[in-house]
Amino acid sequence: MKNIAGIPENGKKRVVIIGGGFAGLKLAKSLKKSDFQIVLIDKNNYHQFQPLFYQVATAGLEPSAISFPLRKAFQNQKDIHFRIASLEKVDVAKQVIHTDIGQLNYDYLALAVGADTNYFGNKNIQRHAIPMKSLGEAINLRNTILTNFENALNETDEEAIDRLLNVVIVGGGPTGTELAGALAEMKKYILPKDYPELDFSRMKIYLLEAASKVLNGYSDASSVKGKEYLERLGVEVMTDTFVKDYDGQSVVLADGKTIATDTLIWAAGIKGNPVNGLGTEVVSRGGRLKVNAYNLVDNHSNIYAIGDIALMSTEKYKNGHPQVAQVAIQQADLLAKNLKRKERGAPLTAFKYWDKGSLATVGRNLAVADLPFVSFQGFFAWVLWLFVHLMAILGVKNRLFVFINWAWSYLTYDQSLRLLIKPKKDKEERNTYEDLAPH
Amino acid sequence: MKNIAGIPENGKKRVVIIGGGFAGLKLAKSLKKSDFQIVLIDKNNYHQFQPLFYQVATAGLEPSAISFPLRKAFQNQKDIHFRIASLEKVDVAKQVIHTDIGQLNYDYLALAVGADTNYFGNKNIQRHAIPMKSLGEAINLRNTILTNFENALNETDEEAIDRLLNVVIVGGGPTGTELAGALAEMKKYILPKDYPELDFSRMKIYLLEAASKVLNGYSDASSVKGKEYLERLGVEVMTDTFVKDYDGQSVVLADGKTIATDTLIWAAGIKGNPVNGLGTEVVSRGGRLKVNAYNLVDNHSNIYAIGDIALMSTEKYKNGHPQVAQVAIQQADLLAKNLKRKERGAPLTAFKYWDKGSLATVGRNLAVADLPFVSFQGFFAWVLWLFVHLMAILGVKNRLFVFINWAWSYLTYDQSLRLLIKPKKDKEERNTYEDLAPH
Repeated sequence: MKNIAGIPENGKKRVVIIGGGFAGLKLAKSLKKSDFQIVLIDKNNYHQFQPLFYQVATAGLEPSAISFPLRKAFQNQKDIHFRIASLEKVDVAKQVIHTDIGQLNYDYLALAVGADTNYFGNKNIQRHAIPMKSLGEAINLRNTILTNFENALNETDEEAIDRLLNVVIVGGGPTGTELAGALAEMKKYILPKDYPELDFSRMKIYLLEAASKVLNGYSDASSVKGKEYLERLGVEVMTDTFVKDYDGQSVVLADGKTIATDTLIWAAGIKGNPVNGLGTEVVSRGGRLKVNAYNLVDNHSNIYAIGDIALMSTEKYKNGHPQVAQVAIQQADLLAKNLKRKERGAPLTAFKYWDKGSLATVGRNLAVADLPFVSFQGFFAWVLWLFVHLMAILGVKNRLFVFINWAWSYLTYDQSLRLLIKPKKDKEERNTYEDLAPH
Repeated sequence: MKNIAGIPENGKKRVVIIGGGFAGLKLAKSLKKSDFQIVLIDKNNYHQFQPLFYQVATAGLEPSAISFPLRKAFQNQKDIHFRIASLEKVDVAKQVIHTDIGQLNYDYLALAVGADTNYFGNKNIQRHAIPMKSLGEAINLRNTILTNFENALNETDEEAIDRLLNVVIVGGGPTGTELAGALAEMKKYILPKDYPELDFSRMKIYLLEAASKVLNGYSDASSVKGKEYLERLGVEVMTDTFVKDYDGQSVVLADGKTIATDTLIWAAGIKGNPVNGLGTEVVSRGGRLKVNAYNLVDNHSNIYAIGDIALMSTEKYKNGHPQVAQVAIQQADLLAKNLKRKERGAPLTAFKYWDKGSLATVGRNLAVADLPFVSFQGFFAWVLWLFVHLMAILGVKNRLFVFINWAWSYLTYDQSLRLLIKPKKDKEERNTYEDLAPH
């Protein structure tokens, strides 16, 4: 296998980072002023802001507003090399990674490969459900929902219309809750204007949660209020509800009841993306890699895992830290410091998670906030949510565009991005999109 | 074949419009206060602003900024029915259209199906060249160019690198000229910062034109200045140059010379989208449909053609009017008036094109303007171009976003939309996009 072209051997130690999510991007940027050569690999050429996928899925934000070109992020950084590539295998003995564009040796390897949707082995659900763990999947969800309404117009069978209109979301965590709220507002404010020919009182939005409350892990007050907000918007919240099967038309629950829908959105769990070559003994529950307090992967001397893929067991977090952006960013930041300390022989610092709190929004003026010493719900939580997410978005222009979009939607009760831009393959297998020409 | 569902027979005469481009959209909106029932059909659920496709292709604008959901456009209009559908055939005798979602009878049929890229029968070029006649094709062009640079990084063969970097644009009309200028500015201001590992002095941008000047049909001063501007930006302008063949790697010119490139962009001509069922005798040069002064298709009594697809031969425009937005909009506007007049037995008005002039932009502060009584080039033409295009964009929010994008790019010498969002098919043949997960 040939080496990846163009990355010089210049005597510097090389840190190879796999993944440009919150963890990988932060690590690469935090190593800006170091003596390392940095190589970052990702399947895409952009960083994605996962917390707002649900707004892309509900036509509130454009994909570009929550993505940021990785090359642009590194314009002022020296000796950093970015490549679009997929990791195929780590050859631990030789200290080499194998990718689809060639191989590369490393001195330090940082795995920030993140996590993907977990269907817990249910093949039927995996085949028919819609996930929302990437920007592409969020766009796909938007296209699916809009296409359903278009198809409902051409349908005369009443049961088929119900299946096209109904949406079932599985998983009452922040993702499912925020998505359910956004869909409910879309149904309330926008869809009747767009589709005066359809009767949206027939459209039901279900949020199913296996645990006894939504926003499990949040404060009791936030869970209770979150559910109340959802129900105020017309979402049918069903807790203690376990989904057993789905054939693309009918959701079967554990108690045998069924819900008719063509659209099942699966936000019920994630699992770490697999990394070939590390050995199974380091893989723990949820596909996460066991690491020590310095994010070093068990049984390895120069391979680190950070973010969602890492499982660091501590007294407080026996099963690992929550798989959220804050943990990823803090681990990446510390790892950058520790790698530099290691090089100069200084003592390393163990990771300690500073939990700044949790936020989730349900709709206009409706959000919940659990901060370290206080928990509150409603308008002020919603303002805090807006502010925190706005500030977290990469790039001043993206921030400005998201802000204008939000302000616009808030004032007009409208989102204007209901575009069905569908990919298609043209004759030469080049990827292209639907043509304009209406013939 | 079943009827298209949900469109009521309510005693009103029905106008069926095929195509939601400039002509079709204008006609549908101009018939707002009429006694007709309106049915609009398009393959997409959005109107596209074609004049700015080239900015989408060069990462300057987001697709959503120059598209507008058709349903949103008709939110305040009564008895208008929009369907996503493809026209398959017109049954003239029965006054029925056949589409992929069913059939529908019409009293009046307005064909606004537009035009697509014309390869003039050259199959090799059609197979390998990249067109830019739809939003999807513009996105595809952007993805192709960005992917070329990524691939160039992994390439060691010098000739292969040249082919990846070089871009050849065929057609020196406004589309080709504007695209060449935008690419040249991208090469100058952005690419060296994004790809410090590549040597962009090697990248050549060619604009090939079969006629003896670029911007043919513009004033001589504008043609000359246009060429001068392009050359100032580093574009290799080759007039009197006819492309004979292209195998995906090498462009063969009529004189036998070749240019090595993986990227040939074809903006050299358009032809009307075919309409089945009308009979060949009404189809004229460029696939356009022969119409009389009221846009009535020859030999038909209730079928109209407007915009790019229509060929109305007048004393001044023997071979038909220019295929531009202004003609389409003016024809649609007049047709709406004439249909209403016809219903009340009033005399019809013949079409007369009011040519407001032509504009084309090459780059920052560089544009040409041919107005009815004056022609000028440079900064003021550029400001006029900006203003006219901004005002023509549908939707206040789109206009605002395009304005901010332009202002931002102007001040920062940067476009921030260099995202490679590629479509892919997932296991279930559902259309989806590339995953985030960098494994």
